[in-house]
This record gives sequence, C-alpha cells and structure tokens, in this order.
Amino acid sequence: MQTIKPIRQLQADLQAGRITSEKLVEQSLALIESYRQAGGAAYLHVDAESALQAARASDAARRAGNVPSPIAGLPVSIKDLFDVRGQVTSAGSRALAGAAPATQDAAAVARLRAAGAVLLGRTNMSEFAFSGLGLNPHYGTPRAPHDEARVAGGSTSGGAVSVAKGMAVATLGTDTGGSIRIPAAFCGLTGFKPTSHRVSLQGGVPLSRTLDSAGPLARTVDCCAIMDRILSGEALDARPASIKGLRLYVTRDFVFDGVDAAVASAFDAAVARLAGLGAQIVPFDFPELKDIPSINGGGGFTAAEAWHWHRELLSTRGEVYDQRVAMRIRRGEKQSAADYITLIDERARVMAAAADRLRDADAWLMPTVAVLPPRVDDLQADEAFFSVNGLVLRNTSVINFLDGCGVSLPTGQPGIGLAVCGLRGADARVLQVAGAIEPALAA
Amino acid sequence: MQTIKPIRQLQADLQAGRITSEKLVEQSLALIESYRQAGGAAYLHVDAESALQAARASDAARRAGNVPSPIAGLPVSIKDLFDVRGQVTSAGSRALAGAAPATQDAAAVARLRAAGAVLLGRTNMSEFAFSGLGLNPHYGTPRAPHDEARVAGGSTSGGAVSVAKGMAVATLGTDTGGSIRIPAAFCGLTGFKPTSHRVSLQGGVPLSRTLDSAGPLARTVDCCAIMDRILSGEALDARPASIKGLRLYVTRDFVFDGVDAAVASAFDAAVARLAGLGAQIVPFDFPELKDIPSINGGGGFTAAEAWHWHRELLSTRGEVYDQRVAMRIRRGEKQSAADYITLIDERARVMAAAADRLRDADAWLMPTVAVLPPRVDDLQADEAFFSVNGLVLRNTSVINFLDGCGVSLPTGQPGIGLAVCGLRGADARVLQVAGAIEPALAA
Repeated sequence: MQTIKPIRQLQADLQAGRITSEKLVEQSLALIESYRQAGGAAYLHVDAESALQAARASDAARRAGNVPSPIAGLPVSIKDLFDVRGQVTSAGSRALAGAAPATQDAAAVARLRAAGAVLLGRTNMSEFAFSGLGLNPHYGTPRAPHDEARVAGGSTSGGAVSVAKGMAVATLGTDTGGSIRIPAAFCGLTGFKPTSHRVSLQGGVPLSRTLDSAGPLARTVDCCAIMDRILSGEALDARPASIKGLRLYVTRDFVFDGVDAAVASAFDAAVARLAGLGAQIVPFDFPELKDIPSINGGGGFTAAEAWHWHRELLSTRGEVYDQRVAMRIRRGEKQSAADYITLIDERARVMAAAADRLRDADAWLMPTVAVLPPRVDDLQADEAFFSVNGLVLRNTSVINFLDGCGVSLPTGQPGIGLAVCGLRGADARVLQVAGAIEPALAA
Repeated sequence: MQTIKPIRQLQADLQAGRITSEKLVEQSLALIESYRQAGGAAYLHVDAESALQAARASDAARRAGNVPSPIAGLPVSIKDLFDVRGQVTSAGSRALAGAAPATQDAAAVARLRAAGAVLLGRTNMSEFAFSGLGLNPHYGTPRAPHDEARVAGGSTSGGAVSVAKGMAVATLGTDTGGSIRIPAAFCGLTGFKPTSHRVSLQGGVPLSRTLDSAGPLARTVDCCAIMDRILSGEALDARPASIKGLRLYVTRDFVFDGVDAAVASAFDAAVARLAGLGAQIVPFDFPELKDIPSINGGGGFTAAEAWHWHRELLSTRGEVYDQRVAMRIRRGEKQSAADYITLIDERARVMAAAADRLRDADAWLMPTVAVLPPRVDDLQADEAFFSVNGLVLRNTSVINFLDGCGVSLPTGQPGIGLAVCGLRGADARVLQVAGAIEPALAA
C-alpha cells in the first residue's frame, strides 16, 4: 500500500527543505491520476491547477518565514458535501449536479485554507452520506486498500482511500453514524469523530442536524489532533496519557452481538496487550444499549431530519437518487412530530444511563465495526445491503446517539479498528487515551 | 375590589407585629370562602388546615428570629398544574382527577415552601393551560374583578383572581402563550413571564416544553421580583431604572392589528406620559411578525408537544376533556417530524430578526392584549371562542415564540395591560424598566 508520512514529519521535511509543497502536491496528483486510471473512485473532482498554484504560493510564503500552521503546504482532500468556493457541492449525488457553484467555503474548509492546507479536490462518498459502506452507484465504490474486493467503508469512502493510498495527508470527513470511523477502520487509518457541532457544519450538506459531526481521517492520532485544532479552533491538549492505570471500560452488551471471530480476536488481543502495559480493563454492563434499535425503529433522527432537508429535492429529482438512499430518507415522511419528541426523550434517557455507567471511565473501548469490511459482491441484493449496512454502522452509531466522540485506531489487523470512545465533550480525553494506546497497537 | 398590600409592606407589618401570619391566612381563607359562596371559581382546592398550621409555625419561627425570605408567612396560591405533595394534580381537568397524589412538591413549589410561603391551595385554570381566556367548563370560569360579565383571562385565571380579590398575596402561574400576562392585564395585576426554563418546570404538567415558563402574578413589579428570586434562585438586580433616556421601542406591525380603541388609547396615553418623563420612544418596523401565524399554522409547538404528552390520555379519557381543548391538542397529531423541524428553523429566523431589530432597545412596549376582556356570553359559540382566544393570545404569544420575557403592568384602565418585553435572558432589564414605568402609570 502507498503511504504518506504523518503531518509532523512532512512539515519537518518542508521546513528543512527536504521537499517542497509543490513536489508533495505533484506526487499526490500523480497518485490520484494513476489510481483513477486503474479504475479507482476516490476523487470526484481534482483541482490540479489551483492546488499547484497554492503549493507554490505556500513554498514562497515559507521562504518568507510565513508558516501559518502544521498543515501549511500539505495536501488535504475534502468530502464532496462541503462547500468549496467556485465548486458545485454534489454530496456524491446526481441530484445536485446542476446546482450553482458555492460562493464561499464551508466554515471548516475556510479554516483549513486559512491554515495553509493545499486543497486537492473533492472526495467520493455514499450519496448524501447515508450509508456506512461507501457504495456509490453513480461514481463507483471506493475499495479497501488491503483487499480490492471489499468496500472502503463510508460514508467518507473516497476521503479514506485518498489518505490510505497516499493521495492526501489528511481528509475532512463527516460522521453521523460512523462515516469517519468506519472507513478509518476498513482502510487502516485513524479517524476522529469529535462531539457533534464542535467543528462547524456550516456550509455542508446535512444528513442529521442532531447527529452530524465533522472531523479528520489521517495516519495517526497526532495527525487527527493537529487537524482538529485547525477545524475546531480549539487548542485541545491531546498529549498522550500514560497507559498505566488508565481505566478502560469494556462492555459485551450489544456491541459484541454478531461480531466476526477475527474482529473479536483482534480486539481481545489489543485489550490483553493494554492490560499487560498496566491499563485497567473494567468490564461493565450497559443493558440500555439494546433499546437503541427500537428507539430508532422509525428511522431515528437521521430519517426525520434527512426527510426535512430532502423532501423538496426528492419530489423534483427523486428518480436520480440512489434508490437505497431515497428509500431510507423516505422513512422520515412517516415520522410524526410526537415521534420525534419521543426520540429526543428516549435519547436523553440512554444518555443519562451512559453518563452514570461511564462516570469513572477514562475511555470506553469497543470494536469500531463488528465485522470485517464486506465484499462488494455480497451487497448486490437490497436485503443483504440493508442488513450488512445496519450491522456495520451499529457500534459507531451508538456514540452518535449518545452525543459522544471517538477515535478509531488501526489494530494492525487489516480492516479492523479499535474504537476509543467518550461522551459529550470528552474530545481531549479521547485523543489523550487514543494517543496512549496507539504505540501499543503498532508494536 | 378587595385588595391586599404588596409583599414588602405585609412583611414589614409582620415584622413589626402589626399582624400575624395566622391572621393574614385567616383573612385569606375567609375571603376564599365568601367568594366561593358567591359563586366564584378561583380555587379548586383549599388547604385551610395545613395553611393555618403553616402560618402558626411561621409566626413561631419569626418570634425565634427565623424569617427565611420576604415571602415568609405570606399566603400564596398555586396553579393547579403544579405538584404539591399529597395532592392530586389535575391541571383544571377531569381527566386527571383519579390520578395518585403527588409524592413530592414541584421544584418551584418546593422553593416557595422553603422560603416560608404559606400555600393556601390550588387555583383554577384553563384545562391543561390551553387557552388565554380562562374558560373552564368543569369547575366554572373565573371573572374579571372589575366586571363579572367578563373573563379573568387565562390560563392562570383562578390565580389572578386570588390575588386581585385579596385571597393571596401572589400566585404561581405558568405562561406558554400569555397565561400569566393576559390574566394580569384583565385583572389589574402585574405579571412576570420569565425566560423559558429559567424557573424550573419540573413537577408541572407541561403544555409546550419549548414555550412553557413559570412565574408570578402579584400586585407590583417589586412583588414579582421578590417571587422571581425565590422561584429562580437567581438574585436578579430588579431595581427600577431611571425613566429618563430609556429607549422604549414600539412597533405598530402585527401587534396593533384589530386593536380595540380603548386599548389603543390607554397605550398611547401611557406612552405619551413616559415620553413626557424623558423616555425615548423609538418606533420600529418588525415585518417578520406577520409570518408567525402561518409558521404556527399547523398548531405550532404547543399542539405538537401537547399531543406528544396527551396522546395516551386522550385515547383513554378523551371524552372528559374540554372538547375545545382536545380539538386543539389533536391538531398536533397531524404534524410531521419534518414540520416540527421547520418550526424550529422558522422560529430561529424570526428570533434572529428580533435580536437585530431590538439590538438597541431597553424594552419593547405593546398592549398586553389587543382587546378588552371578552364577555363570557360572547364566547358560547365555538367559532367566537376560537377567534377571540386567538386574538387575546396574539401579542403575548409573540414573546413566547421569540423565547423572550415580559412584564404586564396595569395601565390604570380596567382590564388593560401594558407589556414591557425583552428577548431571551433580558429578565433583569425587563423588571428594571417595568419598575421605572410602574409609578408613571399609577400617577
């Protein structure tokens, strides 16, 4: 697999003159082009010329002593649902293809640009971010880097592949039910889903206003923390914790139902290694988790809020939607205001249980995804798609439901991630714990 | 009209030994009894024995030097929707009449009790707080003190009458669309609707979780401020502002449509007097107000949220509801989750306009209610009821919709109130401005 160095190393290379931004961008563009020619579907739109111009300007600024951030001069990709001024935001769909170009950058994109990132282009995604697998019937389905027969995961599918294949140093994604953490797990990357709305979602096509969050996929926890500081504008202390004595909570409730043997064994091996390094592994019960499927039985926040956003567009362009996406959005049509209020209350109840059960935890560990990346060929039938998609999203979406945050770390086993989770606002702690765990998994 | 002295004077009388709490409570109970015998419908339940016991205990505590608050030893009434331990909370309905007694006080009631208030009993209201007129087909309709042919206003109808007729020094009410301010205006009292959720609504039967607020009706702004400090636990600085130079905003948009000549003339006279005292009257445009009726066309937050709360009870006890109330709650059944989300967005849009248009205002003045208290006889037909109820609620409900706060002051003209309004969190300022205006109206 092609790789790209972590942000801090590349920045040191730039600063020492071992490479230029222009050269880095040229390398990325060459990889993008060869990947595309091989039939890959990572980018939907590439800004070769403007990226090269930005890279040259960055090199000149650096020579003048102007390096605005650790990401300055480095190539970054952007999920197709964020506005980039002058470009059409299509969110992986054909329904928005004829829309007017954005007149200004989305807030998160503007922050990356102001930090000196070189924006390479727009990456592929599940249409409107509405699946965890990354299937896209319009623009092709990004594949897992370790096994091209398997999906890369979604919805930030192209973004994950862009980093995994060395076509970008980091990518800006979104996560409503796992759309950052799932492709991170499937593609051997680190993905950070911050607490909802910590990173501005302004200028992005929403999926669920309640559950959406924006964040990075990159090579390491440190890379994610660097991206997060830029994206959120908040100087989180993400220095790795000491592994010794960390209280790492593990429940077998719900999140281990139907788990693949390979996933369970990778998780158990990781946990055993952490225990060996002095972490305290604390088993706990969380029976309320099993209520989540019935709470979301009518489609949950995502269907209700997506229907609110899409109902006009569906009425005029519904025929060009991925029908599997349209079908799930249309579930929201049947939800009543009272159902929605019940959803808010039931969520609050499970959140209160979580706060109680995890009160003394430094983090909560689980397999990011219960199963290995599914084979594309196994997802042809709708029934298989819906059932596998539900299972792939299950663990990660618990954290969105709880309004929490989390990092997916690569376990070293291809396609298998370890999720380091926290509740609302535990962003710094989750990064600190993930930073402590990361070297143990890499060893 | 019977009156009762303001809180501070009564407290001074108690402190100086000119009267006792027991005597005050005896007087209140006597007035309650004679009002009841005359056919009045202010209280639904009177706690004569326990009120007398509490009064004696308060007198004993005072002799021992223990006076926990300015309300200590004073008789206060409670709207029938708040839990009082040991009592059934019926919210003016028959549907809850068989419910179990509350095991503990509502949060606001507990604060009053801890402050030493003597709780006299539960006051009449529009069933489930769902009308601005105070009609109650089960327990009788409280009448305006100045004209028994007219309604007292609602939904805190019995509470308003209890204070206006000297049967309590203050009452605890709620306000979802005007239920404190309307009966204050119709009954010649001062009513303060704080910002939603500033005073805890825990232990109260909700009407609209979004729009509900709890607060006092009493004789003066100072009485309301004293009650508010107890109810909210927040030591607001409510000292009257200087009238000179106050920027008092007035718009003719929306809130003057269909105004009664007597109301307009009382309002104009008040404003002229304030201008004469040096206040700066600032006319302003607020065209977005006229969008509110269509935004709420499907029943708004109140119908959606009331339906959520009532749907089970309606299915089992629907036949004993006031059918005018049931009909309006049932409008919520037709609201979709997407409609509810649209409502949230449209409200945010009008709130943003309000913040902009009122940026430099010390307060916004309007007639509390556009019309005189309606005659009970004019409300027999459903059509008349719904149209008059809508008009009576219109001005006050603007403030709930904007998530604001407000005081209704008596203008000196029977049944006509002057509303001193502010946006979210402007509670202290609104009390300060109302305190500045109050003596000008009384003069």
